[in-house]
Amino acid sequence: MAETTKIRFGFIGCAEIARKVSRAVALAPNAVLQAVGSRSFDKAHAFAAANGFPAGAKVYGSYEAVLDDPEVDAVYVPLPTSLHLRWAVLAASKKKHVMLEKPVALNVTEFDEIIAACESNGVQLMDGTMWMHHPRTSKMKEFLSDVNRFGQLKSISSNFTFTGSPDFLENDIRVKPDLDALGALGDEGWYCLRAILWVADYELPKTVIALRSPVHNQSGVLLACGATLYWEDGKVATFYCSFLANMTMDITALGTKGALHVHDFVIPYEEKEASFLAATESGFDEGVTKWINQPKPHVIKTDIPQEALMVNEFAHLVADIKFKNAKPEKKWPTISRKTQLVVDAVKASIDRGFEPVQLQE
Amino acid sequence: MAETTKIRFGFIGCAEIARKVSRAVALAPNAVLQAVGSRSFDKAHAFAAANGFPAGAKVYGSYEAVLDDPEVDAVYVPLPTSLHLRWAVLAASKKKHVMLEKPVALNVTEFDEIIAACESNGVQLMDGTMWMHHPRTSKMKEFLSDVNRFGQLKSISSNFTFTGSPDFLENDIRVKPDLDALGALGDEGWYCLRAILWVADYELPKTVIALRSPVHNQSGVLLACGATLYWEDGKVATFYCSFLANMTMDITALGTKGALHVHDFVIPYEEKEASFLAATESGFDEGVTKWINQPKPHVIKTDIPQEALMVNEFAHLVADIKFKNAKPEKKWPTISRKTQLVVDAVKASIDRGFEPVQLQE
Repeated sequence: MAETTKIRFGFIGCAEIARKVSRAVALAPNAVLQAVGSRSFDKAHAFAAANGFPAGAKVYGSYEAVLDDPEVDAVYVPLPTSLHLRWAVLAASKKKHVMLEKPVALNVTEFDEIIAACESNGVQLMDGTMWMHHPRTSKMKEFLSDVNRFGQLKSISSNFTFTGSPDFLENDIRVKPDLDALGALGDEGWYCLRAILWVADYELPKTVIALRSPVHNQSGVLLACGATLYWEDGKVATFYCSFLANMTMDITALGTKGALHVHDFVIPYEEKEASFLAATESGFDEGVTKWINQPKPHVIKTDIPQEALMVNEFAHLVADIKFKNAKPEKKWPTISRKTQLVVDAVKASIDRGFEPVQLQE
Repeated sequence: MAETTKIRFGFIGCAEIARKVSRAVALAPNAVLQAVGSRSFDKAHAFAAANGFPAGAKVYGSYEAVLDDPEVDAVYVPLPTSLHLRWAVLAASKKKHVMLEKPVALNVTEFDEIIAACESNGVQLMDGTMWMHHPRTSKMKEFLSDVNRFGQLKSISSNFTFTGSPDFLENDIRVKPDLDALGALGDEGWYCLRAILWVADYELPKTVIALRSPVHNQSGVLLACGATLYWEDGKVATFYCSFLANMTMDITALGTKGALHVHDFVIPYEEKEASFLAATESGFDEGVTKWINQPKPHVIKTDIPQEALMVNEFAHLVADIKFKNAKPEKKWPTISRKTQLVVDAVKASIDRGFEPVQLQE
C-alpha cells in the first residue's frame, strides 16, 4: 500500500511557522501529518483541526508523547532556539529523524551535541531553511557556477529585513533573551549567512567583523546587525539584517563575468513562480548611452511550494534510511553547522567590540 | 538673438568622457560647443570634427588658449585628476565657470583650493556626476523623503563595478598613479559615496572604515575597495567598487516603512527611460505564501539624456550669473566637497590598516 511508504511527521510545538510547515507536509507527496504535541492538549487539538491534520492523526498534551509514538518517523521542531538542544537530542535518542527550525542552536557547541545524537542514532538531520529547496535556487547556482556566464566570484551582499510590529517587538519569541537569544541575527541573519555561504560553495570565510551599528532591545537581544566577511582569496561579503526596516530579501553576487540579483530569496513574491536577474559581460554601447548585455530576468515556475519541496527532500532521505538501509545524508547538517559557525562569529565580534573573529574549517 | 544667451563651452582635453559631454552640450538647449584644446592640435581638430563641434568652433593646440578665449564662458575639465588643481584654478582665475570631472581632486585640501579660486572669481563650479540630473533621481528622492512611503532611513548599500579589459587595466589613466591616483575609489567609489550621501541628505557619516579586501595594482593604485559608514543616529552604509567584476550599479536604501532598489543608477540601461523599484509596508499574506505590497517598478521617461540635463543645469546657473548678476550656486561644490571628504576617509582608512576614520562636518 502506497500510504505506508509515506514518512509520518510528528510536530512538537505549534509555533506560527508550524502552520506553514504542516501545510507543506500535507502537500509533499511522500509525507503525512501523523501527530502534534503541545504543552497544552487544547492548543494541540486546535492546531491539528486548523491545519489539515487527517482524521487519524494523534493529538498530545506533551512533546514527549510525540517522541514516544511508534507511528512517528520524523519530528519537526519549531520550538524556540533555547529548547533545540534538549528536544532534538531527545528526539534522536528515540530514533526520530529531526527537521529542526533555524537557527539550529544557540551556538555551534550545542549544535555539535545535536549532530552527535543524530549520528549515533542513525537519524537524518535537516534544518528548516526553505529557500534552499526552491527550483530557483538550483537555477541560480547553475548561473553562479558557470565560468562563462559568471566567472570568478568577487563579492556577495545580502539583506534580510522586515518591520516588526509593536506587538512583535514586545512579545515575539525572537526578541526574548530566554527563547531566541540570537534575535534578528539568528532569525534573519541566518538566511543572509546561509545565502553568502551558498554563493561561496560553503567555503567558510577566514575573518568575520560585525558592523558597528547593532541595535539591541532592553533585554540585550539583537534587533538589527550585520557584518563583513573575508576569504583568503580576496572575496568579500556583507550582510545586514533588521527587525526595524521594510521587508527586503536580497542577494547580490558579483563575478568577473557576471552578476546576480534576487530580491525575494527567502520567500518568493509569489508561491508558484519566482525570478532572478542575471547579467553577463555587461557594458556600454559605442556612445556610452545605454547598456549592452543588460541583466535579464529568469523566471522559474514551481507547482509545489519550496517548503513542500523541503519536506519532500527530507522525507526522501528518511525513506531511504527506513526502507533501503541508507545512511543519513551529511550535507544538510554540515551546511547547518557552517551557518551556525558564522552566526557565532558575528555574535562574538559584536560581543568583543567589533573585533575581527577568525574562523577555521 | 537667442543664440547669444547660450553658454559657450570650451573643452580642455579630449578624454573618452569628453565625447559624451560634447554630445550633451550639443543636446542642451542653452549651451553651445565653442572651443576645444589639447596638447596636440591634431588631436583637438580630430575630436572637434568627430564630436559635432559647429563650424565656428575654435580648435587649439593647448589648454591655455581655451582659457584665454574671450568667447568661452565655461570650461569642461575632463583631465586626469592629478591635473585638476592646476587647471581648475587657472580657469577660475580667467573668470571661466568650471565643470569638473570626478573625482574633483586628489584630496579635499586640493579641492578647497579649487573652491577658493572659484569663489574669489565669482564663477560657478559643478562636478560631472551625471546621474544627479536624471529626472529619475528626483523621483527616487521624493520616495525616500516620504515618511509615509519610506519612513526613517536605516541602511544604504551601493555597488559600482565593471570588468576592465586587459588594455584598461594596463593603460587607462584610472590605473596610473601619476594620473588618477585614486583608481577605482575615485572613479567608481565616487559614485557609490555620492549615492550614499544623496540618500542620507548629505549628512556626513561620523565614522568610515574601509573593507579589508582592497586590491591594488603593481603601482599601488586601487582596483577594488569598499567601506562601511556609520552615522550618529545608527544609520549604516556599505559600498563596494571594483574594476574586476561585471558591470553593476546598485543603490539599496532601507527605511522603516519602505525600500528602494535601483540597478543602473550611474548610467541607465536605456537613455530615454529609467526605472527603480519601490516598496512600502511589504509583508506576507495570511498563509505566508506570498508578499503583499511587493516592490513596484517606477518608470521615468526623459527626452533629454541625463548628461544634457547636467549641462543644462550648469549653463542655467552660469547664465544667471552672466546675465542676471546672480551669485554662484554653492550646493554643487558643497556636495562635491562632501563626496571628496568621504573618498579621502576611505583612502585614509585603507592606508592606516583599516582603522576607523572619524569625520567632521
